[in-house]
Amino acid sequence: MKVLILGAGGFLGGRLARALARRGTLRGRPITGLALADVAPPPMPEAPFPVESLKIDIADPASVAARIAPGTDVIFHLAAIVSAHAEEDLDAGMAVNMGGSLNVFERCRALGSCPVLVFASSIAVYGGAVPDPVTDATFLNPQTSYGTQKAVAELLLNDYSRRGLVDGRGLRLPSISVRPGRPNRAASAFMSGIFREPLSGQEAICPVGSDFAHYYLGPRRCVENLIRAAELEAAALGQNRCMTMPGRRWTIGQMIAAMTEVAGAAPARLIRWEPQPEIERIVSGWRDDIRADRALALGLTADDSFADNIRQFLEDDLPGGPVVS
Amino acid sequence: MKVLILGAGGFLGGRLARALARRGTLRGRPITGLALADVAPPPMPEAPFPVESLKIDIADPASVAARIAPGTDVIFHLAAIVSAHAEEDLDAGMAVNMGGSLNVFERCRALGSCPVLVFASSIAVYGGAVPDPVTDATFLNPQTSYGTQKAVAELLLNDYSRRGLVDGRGLRLPSISVRPGRPNRAASAFMSGIFREPLSGQEAICPVGSDFAHYYLGPRRCVENLIRAAELEAAALGQNRCMTMPGRRWTIGQMIAAMTEVAGAAPARLIRWEPQPEIERIVSGWRDDIRADRALALGLTADDSFADNIRQFLEDDLPGGPVVS
Repeated sequence: MKVLILGAGGFLGGRLARALARRGTLRGRPITGLALADVAPPPMPEAPFPVESLKIDIADPASVAARIAPGTDVIFHLAAIVSAHAEEDLDAGMAVNMGGSLNVFERCRALGSCPVLVFASSIAVYGGAVPDPVTDATFLNPQTSYGTQKAVAELLLNDYSRRGLVDGRGLRLPSISVRPGRPNRAASAFMSGIFREPLSGQEAICPVGSDFAHYYLGPRRCVENLIRAAELEAAALGQNRCMTMPGRRWTIGQMIAAMTEVAGAAPARLIRWEPQPEIERIVSGWRDDIRADRALALGLTADDSFADNIRQFLEDDLPGGPVVS
Repeated sequence: MKVLILGAGGFLGGRLARALARRGTLRGRPITGLALADVAPPPMPEAPFPVESLKIDIADPASVAARIAPGTDVIFHLAAIVSAHAEEDLDAGMAVNMGGSLNVFERCRALGSCPVLVFASSIAVYGGAVPDPVTDATFLNPQTSYGTQKAVAELLLNDYSRRGLVDGRGLRLPSISVRPGRPNRAASAFMSGIFREPLSGQEAICPVGSDFAHYYLGPRRCVENLIRAAELEAAALGQNRCMTMPGRRWTIGQMIAAMTEVAGAAPARLIRWEPQPEIERIVSGWRDDIRADRALALGLTADDSFADNIRQFLEDDLPGGPVVS
């Protein structure tokens, strides 16, 4: 079982690589090789099988063809330009999020081996004037270029799967929180920053009000769900290969209360409330009353509580525990 | 008011050109030039303004840039590879239906003048396991590569319109019947052929049963609706620029009865019933219980009866009246 992660330099890609290294198997077979590819060669985990770290330009068909080797059984395609970046730079978003995905699908077609392809879409495909709740039968009505490009890739993934060119599984990721590391250019960056920075003893800006509600998932469950998606049998998926990954709806206020429950009152005092109209405009176009019935029926799962996410962040990413200033 | 029709060599494009020549105005202003473009230079109607006939390769960005001249106010984009052709040849469909549409949107972006762009999408964007009735809020769930490529173009048209790069209006055309001329490679070709050929004294094959139901519009109303779509104010459209063009649901049996009502019993006897599994597979994936509420509210219209369509076909395309053999 040869596995490739596109976008392995990102935080989810890195966690997925470590999770695969720990498991050693996928789809009931031993993993015999793991290739990690990103714009810069990604870090390699310790693993009981060979791992290679590769540079890829996903917008370039030749680079994609060179990196998706014959014999690749499972591809996780997590490579993307994030939402605020794609909104600022239409060309970059079109080249990477749409063109890059098409390059991956076309390379799979050229291989002729119909590899399993797990594609990270986003709940940013939803938005605007569609009725609540948002289900797997809801109109994709993206309000951003990022959401548009993800929705286009979903449509193409379905068609290439229908034609037997790839065995696709598209998962619309909830906003991931608590995300470790540095803030990125996603409009949703604050949704982790207001927990991550205060738990590390630093100030963070919250650009929306405490009643802002959104649909979240923690990193651990997200990685488990990506692996579960790879392991599903194609027959269980039917014609529409894309679905929402389970998450939970929380308000900012509920999430801060969960942080206080786990780590005491100090971190919440480090949050500065500063409205940012451009961020509010983007995130208020997203939807929050989302149901992931198809994925839940297929065995994917959501978090039990946001306090769990805070605890997992402290265990996985802040092993010294919260800094109290 | 400079107008361009892409796909003007097709039957709808040709009718649209003649209708614009008769009107002489669009969006309340005199038409001062009409450019007609297709893979071969299209026929030019008599008109009270200059008309030019141009060759275009819509899959080639340079050709599209050369044909969409600065100062173009309104573009009708009807150029497409039809359904059965796109199903047979994925590369051709991707290059023309998706890539060609993107070339048009990108050219409008480069012009910087935000031209009005009327895009002919198709009800083939609908299908599969989505609940009845199909409304403008229904999930686009195409079951063919043609429908996929049209759905992708709709998403991009919305995003490019949201960004102010083009003033888009996407209309999901019902199956057009009665269509004159020779059969084309569309899976829906029989939906006109079983009327057109018998009314001309020739045999025709019906590959589906008489209870097969579908969503239709006659050519006259379709052209009127395309012009109406160009004349709408952008403010009336909102964020989602795409909608279903009004049509009516008829069964093959109802349509044949309408032909008999208008032209007597002889034509129906020229229909040969020969099931064709590949055609049945494609068209049975389409949906028929479709509601075009948004377009109806914006003043677009459906036919009053299929007998009207038969009468219009006889007037417009068979001026000698039906041939009785």
